[in-house]
Amino acid sequence: MPASPIRKLVPYADAAKKRGTKVYHLNIGQPDLPTPRKALDALKHIDRTTLEYSHSAGLLSLRKALTGYYRRYGIEITTDELMVTCGGSEALLLTFLSCFNPGDEFIMIEPGYANYLGFAVTAGLKVRSVPSRIEDGFALPPIEEFEKVITPATKGILICNPNNPTGYVYSREELETLRDIVKRHDLFLIADEVYREFRYNGMPYVSALTLEGVEDNVIVVDSVSKRYSECGTRIGMLVTHNKDVLAAVMKFAQSRLSPPLLGQIVAEASIEGTEDYAKACFDEYKARRDFFIEGLNKIPGVYSPMPEGAFYTVASLPVEDAEDFAKWCLTDFSWEGATVMMAPAAGFYSDKELGKNQVRMAYVLCKEDLAAALKCLEEALKAYNNR
Amino acid sequence: MPASPIRKLVPYADAAKKRGTKVYHLNIGQPDLPTPRKALDALKHIDRTTLEYSHSAGLLSLRKALTGYYRRYGIEITTDELMVTCGGSEALLLTFLSCFNPGDEFIMIEPGYANYLGFAVTAGLKVRSVPSRIEDGFALPPIEEFEKVITPATKGILICNPNNPTGYVYSREELETLRDIVKRHDLFLIADEVYREFRYNGMPYVSALTLEGVEDNVIVVDSVSKRYSECGTRIGMLVTHNKDVLAAVMKFAQSRLSPPLLGQIVAEASIEGTEDYAKACFDEYKARRDFFIEGLNKIPGVYSPMPEGAFYTVASLPVEDAEDFAKWCLTDFSWEGATVMMAPAAGFYSDKELGKNQVRMAYVLCKEDLAAALKCLEEALKAYNNR
Repeated sequence: MPASPIRKLVPYADAAKKRGTKVYHLNIGQPDLPTPRKALDALKHIDRTTLEYSHSAGLLSLRKALTGYYRRYGIEITTDELMVTCGGSEALLLTFLSCFNPGDEFIMIEPGYANYLGFAVTAGLKVRSVPSRIEDGFALPPIEEFEKVITPATKGILICNPNNPTGYVYSREELETLRDIVKRHDLFLIADEVYREFRYNGMPYVSALTLEGVEDNVIVVDSVSKRYSECGTRIGMLVTHNKDVLAAVMKFAQSRLSPPLLGQIVAEASIEGTEDYAKACFDEYKARRDFFIEGLNKIPGVYSPMPEGAFYTVASLPVEDAEDFAKWCLTDFSWEGATVMMAPAAGFYSDKELGKNQVRMAYVLCKEDLAAALKCLEEALKAYNNR
Repeated sequence: MPASPIRKLVPYADAAKKRGTKVYHLNIGQPDLPTPRKALDALKHIDRTTLEYSHSAGLLSLRKALTGYYRRYGIEITTDELMVTCGGSEALLLTFLSCFNPGDEFIMIEPGYANYLGFAVTAGLKVRSVPSRIEDGFALPPIEEFEKVITPATKGILICNPNNPTGYVYSREELETLRDIVKRHDLFLIADEVYREFRYNGMPYVSALTLEGVEDNVIVVDSVSKRYSECGTRIGMLVTHNKDVLAAVMKFAQSRLSPPLLGQIVAEASIEGTEDYAKACFDEYKARRDFFIEGLNKIPGVYSPMPEGAFYTVASLPVEDAEDFAKWCLTDFSWEGATVMMAPAAGFYSDKELGKNQVRMAYVLCKEDLAAALKCLEEALKAYNNR
């Protein structure tokens, strides 16, 4: 299993910090916004004397609150169609283990979230990649690209919508294209929708769970991590109408006993009565996106499509080897005592020829820090190319 | 994957409760004792505004506290030899994924903790079982029994010490026997030591990590769940001196991002300054054990060895099919409005001929409830055998 591209350069960043250089972390999607006050207060008011196992599928009260949350997006599910997991990570792993057998193949669009590959290794799966292109703004690749890689061993397609790392949001038309492919070949459609709240194009959200005719094919992987800035609580969800998948997931879920209790309490308190919080987060991320992407495209030779969702972008830089450049920024460069850390995008592609001059950047810093990071990047590119 | 034996009868228990029958749960090891006050207070004093990811190996402050904890048991480890996981469950899964390849075999002693099998399925491993016998008090089977099942595909031995489900505590001599086997065949020795605190025979504890000459073979799976009655926080540990295993574990750990933050805060607050708490828990469990096992052995036809550790026992009942009896207790029986729920022990054996007349019982109820449960069991056996 390759090292995670978002962490590969961590030792260099640590060394830079030791030398006294400030590092602006654009490499990781750790939101800096606060967790809802209401959720933090819920922790202070826990009146349990024993922190015991919850139900393997999660607290019923949390599952009830979640069905209400999904209803707001037009997703009708029952508390039995929902498993609370240890982060979206576990939801994806349990999906893999329950839907696929070792040796099965699934298709993902690249650049894709690198940690998916770790879970594919765990479940013994083979990944087939279909490339999306920066010049198309990372839109859904044409249907022929999918057909090309489908083999008898192909059992599913995995999408991330809104997309990490590209920020692309798939349209209804694109999702219906995917629906037709999974229907034709009887595949699972696994949709990672953890960035559902963060869409900046004003279009209504289309969850894979609302696609007609593929009710038993769709599994949604979800998480409260980014939505409420509570990544550390490790609360995710697996949602599907497919009873067989739910039964298999339950067996795996029982062997790990239960999802984290405290995180469930925090999650439950985050769902209702936090509309103002959600609005403020949305506005903040949108403003940052507008500011950051505009700033990026002003740097000579840098190109970023305008991401319509999540809080990442994949941008191309005027360098041949973005990994070398990103490493150099940490080892050899500083501008007014600071430098910038980016995730080389090559790690998000399986094809070694793709994404070499691209980096993934997360805009989860405040505007002042984003401005400073942009300045560092601009100066670093000048210095690197004039070495 | 078979259904967990501790949960197999849950629907019948639910039905019994719906009929108004009180159910004494001897089937599950959910401690009823309180979590340390100090740990609950730590939750109320969290002053973070964002509940963010921790390090993939866990908070450094927690790992430091844990090295101090292990030192008390003569186990010298560094903070780098310790990974914080989502419960002992994840520690075991990551151990399997990191030490073994799909198709590899490992040996476990049966009756054995049934959930191990779930993780073996996940990791694509084959389990070979060596039976321990109730008439020997579930002591370590003779070395020949291990040699008999070792094949070229055998890569490890998994023990649980003190043992769940039998309560047996392996002696230094027995552990040295295991050390010799793993050395001779170059196997991993995986030791689940989550019940380390609960030993009632007054002998010093021998952790697998203190065995000489197999430093690179030993991986210890641990958890704060039972130790501090905080099962719901999902905090476990994986401890090993083996650098290659640690490196592999780290890759899997990074793909799931981090262990639960809030549980780590609770765990850290539980480790120091809770000596009185630990003593009180120990005394309580010991008193319950003495009371419960004596009571069991007074019921005609029931036999339980005296478990020296943990808070379980596997007892034989004067019935042919303990699963049928356990189910009948829930569906057809009550004594003064109550009945008893036990885990049929057959589910803890791979050999279908073994353990048919045995049940696993956990003594994690207060003495009054244990007394009532014993009375129910006695009356149920009479009624069942006089049907």
